[in-house]
Amino acid sequence: MLHFRGDEYFMQEALKEAQLAFEEGEIPVGAVIACENRIIARGHNTTEKLLDVTAHAEILSITAASNYLNSKYLPDCTLYVTLEPCNMCAGAIFWAQMGRLVYGAGDEKRGFMRIGKELLHPKTTLEYGVLHEECSQLLKEFFQKIRS
Amino acid sequence: MLHFRGDEYFMQEALKEAQLAFEEGEIPVGAVIACENRIIARGHNTTEKLLDVTAHAEILSITAASNYLNSKYLPDCTLYVTLEPCNMCAGAIFWAQMGRLVYGAGDEKRGFMRIGKELLHPKTTLEYGVLHEECSQLLKEFFQKIRS
Repeated sequence: MLHFRGDEYFMQEALKEAQLAFEEGEIPVGAVIACENRIIARGHNTTEKLLDVTAHAEILSITAASNYLNSKYLPDCTLYVTLEPCNMCAGAIFWAQMGRLVYGAGDEKRGFMRIGKELLHPKTTLEYGVLHEECSQLLKEFFQKIRS
Repeated sequence: MLHFRGDEYFMQEALKEAQLAFEEGEIPVGAVIACENRIIARGHNTTEKLLDVTAHAEILSITAASNYLNSKYLPDCTLYVTLEPCNMCAGAIFWAQMGRLVYGAGDEKRGFMRIGKELLHPKTTLEYGVLHEECSQLLKEFFQKIRS
């Protein structure tokens, strides 16, 4: 029997992805996409490794989830991401008609909420602040490390 | 001797990419990226073929240009695209610090200008309306065809 897994479980898995990014010298942002209580896609920021600004955790995991489900649209999925998505990623989440978006830490400088929820699809429900402390802490450690 | 090529030349090349998309049954949007008077990347919408909402002409050509130049940032490049970019693509153009963006047809419904130029990087110069009629006409033909 598969136990119901809550938001914290999935955000912990996104944090594991963020940790991988950290270890690779990338800004530590991770994402997972869950569907029917299971993770169907995972990704972490690889913009430095790929020298590609589009290689954000969200973009990579949306591509992977669509590939897995054989569907452009992801209305029955939840995207968990450790940091508030940027405008680019909010646009991708819009196009995918993601059912639900859950993010951990806020991003006052580059987050899509500077523009607002209008960047998301009207059908996408939004939650934030899940494991906020852990998500923020990893980012803080990263920037302290590269500045020292 | 390489003659100086103007915006119309490069937009014609973007239109060739849009035509390829049309022939593949995709919404006909094409893009090229020029650097020092040469095309270094090309792309067209392949969202249906790849079942991937992120496979817009702009995203694909930014990834290709960064790969070609071995650089995440494209401040010396111009992106020519037949249709006004969406919010997702404007976000990618922002992250790439694209030197210049030139688009053909406007997109009142999904174009980034609904939000505004603030979605672009302050260093990106913007021009639009180049071969506007040709770019619009191809889109109109496509939608007439799929609705008939």
